[in-house]
Amino acid sequence: MQAWADQARAGAKRIGFVPTMGYLHEGHLSLVRVAKARSDVVVASIFVNPLQFSPTEDLARYPRDFDRDRAMLVQEGVDVIFYPEAAEMYPADFTTSVQVSKLTDTLCGRSRPGHFQGVTTVVAKLFTCVKPHLAVFGSKDAQQALVIKRMARDLNFDIEIVIAPTVREPDGLAMSSRNSFLKPLERQQAATLFRALRHAEELIALGERLPQKVINAISDMIVRETSGAIDYVALVDVNTLQDVKEIRGQILIALAVFFGKTRLIDNILVQAP
Amino acid sequence: MQAWADQARAGAKRIGFVPTMGYLHEGHLSLVRVAKARSDVVVASIFVNPLQFSPTEDLARYPRDFDRDRAMLVQEGVDVIFYPEAAEMYPADFTTSVQVSKLTDTLCGRSRPGHFQGVTTVVAKLFTCVKPHLAVFGSKDAQQALVIKRMARDLNFDIEIVIAPTVREPDGLAMSSRNSFLKPLERQQAATLFRALRHAEELIALGERLPQKVINAISDMIVRETSGAIDYVALVDVNTLQDVKEIRGQILIALAVFFGKTRLIDNILVQAP
Repeated sequence: MQAWADQARAGAKRIGFVPTMGYLHEGHLSLVRVAKARSDVVVASIFVNPLQFSPTEDLARYPRDFDRDRAMLVQEGVDVIFYPEAAEMYPADFTTSVQVSKLTDTLCGRSRPGHFQGVTTVVAKLFTCVKPHLAVFGSKDAQQALVIKRMARDLNFDIEIVIAPTVREPDGLAMSSRNSFLKPLERQQAATLFRALRHAEELIALGERLPQKVINAISDMIVRETSGAIDYVALVDVNTLQDVKEIRGQILIALAVFFGKTRLIDNILVQAP
Repeated sequence: MQAWADQARAGAKRIGFVPTMGYLHEGHLSLVRVAKARSDVVVASIFVNPLQFSPTEDLARYPRDFDRDRAMLVQEGVDVIFYPEAAEMYPADFTTSVQVSKLTDTLCGRSRPGHFQGVTTVVAKLFTCVKPHLAVFGSKDAQQALVIKRMARDLNFDIEIVIAPTVREPDGLAMSSRNSFLKPLERQQAATLFRALRHAEELIALGERLPQKVINAISDMIVRETSGAIDYVALVDVNTLQDVKEIRGQILIALAVFFGKTRLIDNILVQAP
């Protein structure tokens, strides 16, 4: 991978990079298109990173279909698929970690201890393997995007981090590989997540300034319309990810909800009037 | 720095790198010569890294003399001196760390909690800033060399890590910027450290197999001949840095001794017969 990257760079090619855990959907492909539009050559990686799953999480059952993924990436005109083995990425005496503090204490970081350390460690490794000029991440994983931006800046990675918009199903559900786990009724109910976020946006547009009121409105809607178990609903500062005390300026509204064992996340960025 | 590195790489120049904390001595210059012999262009950095000093350590009084350092590096034919400001390396919202576990629990890591996390974090940053093909470290800091090698391998840095031999004063004292702190009598006594290591080597050559016997011999000599306070004397496995139970094969003998507030370290690699 590094030899290929060196050669591309020697030929003055701009390398775009889309890291994925595979089981691709339209959301991933939209990231590939963003990368293609802004680079000369595009690398996509497929690696289900064991470090970012806790022992109680869904590593073993995480969906995988390399042949399908490869066909989709070839179709999109990706130049290289980087597809390392876990044993190659993490040899037996692997003992290094990359960690971003503070930004990882809230939201998904609170619910999934160690998750973001696994993410930043593997992304740092993927960056040094692929040597891209630009890397594209999805804004469905808003906290991940912010954490990776911070990591890249703090460690002086000479890589432009691009955050691309969330791609949604026709009913508004954010695309996710984990959607494939949903039973038909859960899948139907899951559309409520985005509708609840849109409802919150309306409340704010209408002048609501109290975060707790908005959180309650979102939570009520999810409880009323779905069988999901709320992990968190939060209104946070878009730079620090700390809970806001008053709704002003740009606010990130983020939520995580379990449908059975399947944990879905979504978020929107709103601008208070 | 990155723009310069990109240009050097575009011109197919091999970049050698010697990171330092300045206040250079012959030991640093020997690293520069190793880098020069194996590269087309050489970068030396001078950065007294606050992250690797604990609040009780000697950051404020660490010796600095940029003009002298610059003259010495120019004399050696270094191409670039990278000399960043602390505020530039660590902006106010800097929250990322790079950490190597296990290897950092022993020896200097036990005495200086957080030290190696500071080292690996800054070295990762220097690597992404300078983009070298090869980086040279001194073997006086044996644990640091091993920790950096591990970090570079684990994070897939495409950089050859070269460990160069310790340069010594005529009486055997390992060169160190901190030697400048020693009072004349301490300076004279400090030569005992290397003599004690050589004595240990002789004992092993003569067939000693019990680590504690060798540790005692080193410690006795230091106590008898100096006013220094021993931090540690250890015989460790050269790959894991764990204490050895029996002297066999390659062994690292390492020590740290305080002369007043000044902490000196030294080590030798011995091959048991």
